[in-house]
Amino acid sequence: MNKRHSTDYKTYLSEEELPTHFYNIRADMKQDIAPMLNPGNQKPVTVSDLEPVFATELAKQELNNTDRFIEIPEEVRNFYKMYRPSPLVHAKFLEKELDTPAKIYYKFEGNNTSGSHKLNSAIVQAYYAKEQGLSSLTTETGAGQWGTALAMACGFFGLDLHVYMVKCSAEQKPYRKAVMETYGARVTPSPSLETKVGRAILEKDPDNSGSLGTAISEAVEEALATDNCRYVLGSVLNQVLLHQSIIGLETKAALEKIGVTPDIVIGCAGGGSNLGGLIAPFMRDRLAGKEAPYFIAVEPASCPTLTRGTFAYDFCDVGKVTPLAKMYTLGSGFIPSSNHAGGLRYHGMSPILSQLYHDGFLDEARAVEQTKVFEAATTFARVEGTLPAPESAHAIRVAMDEALKCKETGEEKTIVFGLTGTGYFDLAAYASYRNGTMTDYIPTEEDLQRSLQNIPHIAGIQ
Amino acid sequence: MNKRHSTDYKTYLSEEELPTHFYNIRADMKQDIAPMLNPGNQKPVTVSDLEPVFATELAKQELNNTDRFIEIPEEVRNFYKMYRPSPLVHAKFLEKELDTPAKIYYKFEGNNTSGSHKLNSAIVQAYYAKEQGLSSLTTETGAGQWGTALAMACGFFGLDLHVYMVKCSAEQKPYRKAVMETYGARVTPSPSLETKVGRAILEKDPDNSGSLGTAISEAVEEALATDNCRYVLGSVLNQVLLHQSIIGLETKAALEKIGVTPDIVIGCAGGGSNLGGLIAPFMRDRLAGKEAPYFIAVEPASCPTLTRGTFAYDFCDVGKVTPLAKMYTLGSGFIPSSNHAGGLRYHGMSPILSQLYHDGFLDEARAVEQTKVFEAATTFARVEGTLPAPESAHAIRVAMDEALKCKETGEEKTIVFGLTGTGYFDLAAYASYRNGTMTDYIPTEEDLQRSLQNIPHIAGIQ
Repeated sequence: MNKRHSTDYKTYLSEEELPTHFYNIRADMKQDIAPMLNPGNQKPVTVSDLEPVFATELAKQELNNTDRFIEIPEEVRNFYKMYRPSPLVHAKFLEKELDTPAKIYYKFEGNNTSGSHKLNSAIVQAYYAKEQGLSSLTTETGAGQWGTALAMACGFFGLDLHVYMVKCSAEQKPYRKAVMETYGARVTPSPSLETKVGRAILEKDPDNSGSLGTAISEAVEEALATDNCRYVLGSVLNQVLLHQSIIGLETKAALEKIGVTPDIVIGCAGGGSNLGGLIAPFMRDRLAGKEAPYFIAVEPASCPTLTRGTFAYDFCDVGKVTPLAKMYTLGSGFIPSSNHAGGLRYHGMSPILSQLYHDGFLDEARAVEQTKVFEAATTFARVEGTLPAPESAHAIRVAMDEALKCKETGEEKTIVFGLTGTGYFDLAAYASYRNGTMTDYIPTEEDLQRSLQNIPHIAGIQ
Repeated sequence: MNKRHSTDYKTYLSEEELPTHFYNIRADMKQDIAPMLNPGNQKPVTVSDLEPVFATELAKQELNNTDRFIEIPEEVRNFYKMYRPSPLVHAKFLEKELDTPAKIYYKFEGNNTSGSHKLNSAIVQAYYAKEQGLSSLTTETGAGQWGTALAMACGFFGLDLHVYMVKCSAEQKPYRKAVMETYGARVTPSPSLETKVGRAILEKDPDNSGSLGTAISEAVEEALATDNCRYVLGSVLNQVLLHQSIIGLETKAALEKIGVTPDIVIGCAGGGSNLGGLIAPFMRDRLAGKEAPYFIAVEPASCPTLTRGTFAYDFCDVGKVTPLAKMYTLGSGFIPSSNHAGGLRYHGMSPILSQLYHDGFLDEARAVEQTKVFEAATTFARVEGTLPAPESAHAIRVAMDEALKCKETGEEKTIVFGLTGTGYFDLAAYASYRNGTMTDYIPTEEDLQRSLQNIPHIAGIQ
């Protein structure tokens, strides 16, 4: 492979080189994802089924498996220019620290106020809502990156936003709440008394600390019950992977610009939007039978969706109000141990990534424990400057492990990973790592089986 | 003036265009600053006087008024490449929001984990300490940006660091403490029981909430009492303005690259390092009699050093252990009201900027009230994406005011300001602005006079 490496630390594409179209990997998949099913009648959902929940254009994108490229609206492209193209960084200091012959690059998505890649999809979803003349949106947020991103997007387009924030995160991260409010959003800890779903949960368990699944149920319930309001989701969905393809398109273009061909591409996977976006254009080569890198999805050992979950139809939320999607899942009632600090706590996985993993195109999923993740994060922060988000640090951990393998074998592999965001709002977790109170957690087989039993059994489907 | 404006939002210089030398404005000043005086004998300090406190090379830089350009060490340049050259941003969305014919640009220094321009000097100071074989450093920090920057720099070069953090800030910003600790620093709220100065203050006033002046005294005391240890300061000093000249050098080069000549250059001024660095190369033109922009220093109305202080010899710290510097000062005992949220709370001002202001080369100082500052900050965040540091938002306020004047007069002035950092650790202040509990504070004439009486009267000098 071409081993010409630039002497620069950072490669920026010019604003003229900003992609004009998103890449829709579904148009190229050998086996399309199984259709989402209406939970009432178990029939494939249509645009009309989705329209009460999503803005119409986004409902169309969700179901689009034919158009390979979808144009990025000009207003979205102009917004992107505030922080994109994002830099591709040659991690020379990390290479030196590890004393490895490997070459390590990362695509940095944290250089905007939301602190992560989530803004890439938030602005598209807010744009189509505004275009449709909607007046408000609802969503859920866990660590708060998605909520912040959507608050920024809604603030920019003048839309009202109500965010259901997983209660334990809202309590651990009051400043995440404050930044969303500064951008004009209303933030409610979930479960809340504002929805039927929330009230039912609190009645049974007043101390319920919340989960993404519950927060989704609440946000969807409100969107359905409110005029001129829709729901938006920051990961998992096909539309979100579509928007996040901008990460991979820029990464591939920047690597080509400096004449570098990656051997391994690594991304963290919670709902899958970052990984799906990062690998999309490389996966296109793989699907076309061309040379392509080895793909690794990294997930927390405490929420091991790909490595220990089941590939089955399941609900996307706890309240079971969303359509059923076929994906790797731990069961919609799965909640990682509260000692889990590092995000990526969703019970399911993007149907697109799930299908690609099931079919062997996504080469590997690897589960890592959080103390090892924070060890990698702290080293990375010290030598590369940037304090990474715990989520991103999952990818750093595996990139470092692969680079250390190269040190043993002497191979000069080129490793590319996604640095999805910064950890400025995760300092309580960093503090617990540093003072030794952070522990690891791996669900027992019993716990997992109990949760997997929640997956619906539907006659004729599974 | 040349009004050709680029169509890009962001202008990045290439890494090859990163300045190779700092610019030392003292070599070009019409009237050099008055010498710092040894507080014991009131004689001008020498390198030998400063060596017990500062690394030797930095002591030399502090007194250097002859070398116009000073080379940036290669290791520092390599570190800079992690986050520099920093972007010059055309604030097109802000122009549209204000509906102004003015063109607005800002140099963004917040795209690194310290969140501000402070890292530019921190890495130089840590480098020279490491070169000299020192093992540890002490410093003070207020809002925490400087402490974070120095923690990053010391972490990078493997130096121990002890940070005295102004107590009210340490309490308001626990996560700032955590990020410094993640980079390996030890953080102590000031006043503390670790130093004589701290103990004396706490004995008189156990609830003393601290000040930068006190924290400086403690850090200097420890450095003097500890083997192989020196003190470093993040602003005010000549050496810091020297290092921060990289901001102005890059800004000028980027503007020239896109063919833009600024009419007004605006920076916030606490100790003066950001403003001094930003304007330095433009001021060089002014001092050489060439065309140059109009310079505005912006300070908080609650700590109005340039607008209401006195140009006189004063101590740089509360404990009166530092040399005397001739500067604009409110008296070394001045502490802004505790309702002041926005940084820039130092009682003095860079002697270089003080002299330039006194001599009429720095055209104007303007004091602004914090609610107006946060109003500007919130608008800026919404339309330009980035959540600004409250310090930086002082410059935004005045940039917006100048742009609004242009709207009235129809003038197409080009306004450049320094966006020194991000406000991710200032969300308590943003929250208090949003919920209406933030108030303004302007010291009464009586309060000021009482503080100004602390300025020493030294026979034969003042």
